[in-house]
Amino acid sequence: MLTNYRALGNTEQDSMHRCVVSQQEVESFIGRCLTTVGAIPHHASSLAEVLVTADCRGHYSHGLNRMDMYLKDIQTGVCAVEGEPVVEKESAATALVDGKNLLGPVVGNFRMNLAIRKAKEVGIGWVVAHGSNHFGIAGYYSMQALKENMIGMSFTNTSPLVVPTRGKEVSMLFHLWNKATEHAMSHASGPYVAAPAEHGDSFVLDTATSTVAIGKVELNERRGDPIPDSWGCDPQAHVTTDPKSVLTGGGLVPIGGSEATGGYKGYGLGMMVEVFCGLLAGAQYSKYVRTWKVTDRVANLGQCFVAINPENFAPGFNERMSDLLSIQRDQDPADPGSPVLAPGDPERMNTKKCEEMGGIPYHINVIKYIVRNEKSPTLKPFSFKYFFFTNVKWQELVIC
Amino acid sequence: MLTNYRALGNTEQDSMHRCVVSQQEVESFIGRCLTTVGAIPHHASSLAEVLVTADCRGHYSHGLNRMDMYLKDIQTGVCAVEGEPVVEKESAATALVDGKNLLGPVVGNFRMNLAIRKAKEVGIGWVVAHGSNHFGIAGYYSMQALKENMIGMSFTNTSPLVVPTRGKEVSMLFHLWNKATEHAMSHASGPYVAAPAEHGDSFVLDTATSTVAIGKVELNERRGDPIPDSWGCDPQAHVTTDPKSVLTGGGLVPIGGSEATGGYKGYGLGMMVEVFCGLLAGAQYSKYVRTWKVTDRVANLGQCFVAINPENFAPGFNERMSDLLSIQRDQDPADPGSPVLAPGDPERMNTKKCEEMGGIPYHINVIKYIVRNEKSPTLKPFSFKYFFFTNVKWQELVIC
Repeated sequence: MLTNYRALGNTEQDSMHRCVVSQQEVESFIGRCLTTVGAIPHHASSLAEVLVTADCRGHYSHGLNRMDMYLKDIQTGVCAVEGEPVVEKESAATALVDGKNLLGPVVGNFRMNLAIRKAKEVGIGWVVAHGSNHFGIAGYYSMQALKENMIGMSFTNTSPLVVPTRGKEVSMLFHLWNKATEHAMSHASGPYVAAPAEHGDSFVLDTATSTVAIGKVELNERRGDPIPDSWGCDPQAHVTTDPKSVLTGGGLVPIGGSEATGGYKGYGLGMMVEVFCGLLAGAQYSKYVRTWKVTDRVANLGQCFVAINPENFAPGFNERMSDLLSIQRDQDPADPGSPVLAPGDPERMNTKKCEEMGGIPYHINVIKYIVRNEKSPTLKPFSFKYFFFTNVKWQELVIC
Repeated sequence: MLTNYRALGNTEQDSMHRCVVSQQEVESFIGRCLTTVGAIPHHASSLAEVLVTADCRGHYSHGLNRMDMYLKDIQTGVCAVEGEPVVEKESAATALVDGKNLLGPVVGNFRMNLAIRKAKEVGIGWVVAHGSNHFGIAGYYSMQALKENMIGMSFTNTSPLVVPTRGKEVSMLFHLWNKATEHAMSHASGPYVAAPAEHGDSFVLDTATSTVAIGKVELNERRGDPIPDSWGCDPQAHVTTDPKSVLTGGGLVPIGGSEATGGYKGYGLGMMVEVFCGLLAGAQYSKYVRTWKVTDRVANLGQCFVAINPENFAPGFNERMSDLLSIQRDQDPADPGSPVLAPGDPERMNTKKCEEMGGIPYHINVIKYIVRNEKSPTLKPFSFKYFFFTNVKWQELVIC
């Protein structure tokens, strides 16, 4: 069954470092891993779907690459495997949900469905939750609203990784990561917004309040690639291209850069997300959120999901949305090889590429990390037992 | 009555260039100017209050400095002076408002009151309007929600000034301003968010999707000051420190900078604001919004106001908001002279300074522009007739 593993890229070197695995196989693999450590099947498949969607959309930092974190959360018992989220307080348009410390996607799906239901009735649903966990790509949930021809929006807080304007280190915006619990802001993410256009087209904004997500730095480190000099800083708070140095004592750079170039906007937007998440939900917030990947206690993340029904406003929303997308896309690009894109286009192109190839293209190091990286004790037990890929052996993967 | 005009600043040069005018006098002056050209008194006082609030908060770009634009809108008849906004469509939590082409603050106050009323009933009010005009500082409206212990949020679109990532000019993010009607995005502004803490304290985020507002560039040009090299570009699309060159064929720089440093996030956030404003409201949007300061046709701006009642979510919101503000403010600053601030603190300090001085400190060139700038035919008729300042003559202002 070599059909699922095909060479990618134009150069021989490229093809040596990449392989293609079918979406179904990855999803099923993730599901098997999760249920083996104790997740109930429908929770496991919720998470598997979110992770595979991330990879299909090209957000590899939040896909298969991130699976070990969820496995560890379940294995250590820091994340609950039984029960369902509950509504604690409710009005026609709002709800406060207790996520019961379940897997993030379980809480996320519950909340987005509730928001959509409310938006059908009164035009908007604004639902916040405490007791949640990391839920993968936020865009997955906002996009659920598209199926109902609604606007979807999601926000989440997470562990402290970014620090406010005028932070401690001279001439830099951010504190050192190893001071995170003392000084850092939680790495508030959002707004993630999806809005429906005509003929299945849409606007999908997938952003965060730092220049990039920490997962992108991790991924470059895993692949052995340097990072652009605008992503993070080293332990001396100097901008660096070495992902390892960002991950071991350094930190992320907030969107906007320095105070003069609008860095305080990224800082302010981060606090806004925290207002909607940790503060409204009564969850952990800011420096109280546990340290990234340290599972010494429950995460108790705060998250906020919104659904808005365009039918409650001016008629013709979808046509205007399509027109606005066209205005952007139809512009003459600076470089003919780099057309002007609308938010969501890069992910749409990735998804299309995966469909054409019959699977998700992975860098070989990501697969290596998952199946036999000795430094990953969490994954070690799964190495050969669960990574079947329809019985194609590791060596065959390397060849492709 | 020289008490209202006192020297500011530490150097002789400073005191030659600044003067202090009482808030009441500026507000009354603006009101007189507006009613003289035809605004009805309560509309005029709504606008005057917004402009003076902007100056008190230190947002001089959106205060007295901006009055001539509103006068022109009324004088040319492009903005309506009679009637009130009307609700076109409504649910328990949402409303679509027709601003009837009235002054922005008239539409703004109507809409924010409506949003707050809905939030009292169902926890959230999401109100959008078409047929509106420029409404001054958006923060003024979000802060109305604070009086009811609610979170307020406002968004607006305005004339095309910023252009998407991968724009036409090589290696730059933005198109030239003189191509604005062809290519530019509307200068979408927001989110502007205010959230209540304890003891009258609050979080007030006053931002935009470009590095700075165009008014700040105008103000520097009026004062004869250069601009930081991160605010705008010249007609050749090169970053410049000359405000005149930004205002005559150049353009603004979007937040985030280049594609690699996250400029696509500023671009995406700008489109999100347009989704909530022009698209949901069925107003003008993107390149269809009239050119900045060209009053050849009605503006028909789209705006979106939101009120959220924390009582519908987890108890203790105000305490958590206060705590989060303290976490930021209590950090050791990089430079002891520049403490870490929370969003809204600079404006709070400005307001306090005005209270202590008994008035608003203006750069003398701003006053000069208002009272006798020959290049301002709109303002000329008002020069000496309306700028009484309790009968202190212009020469006395210069002395202070």
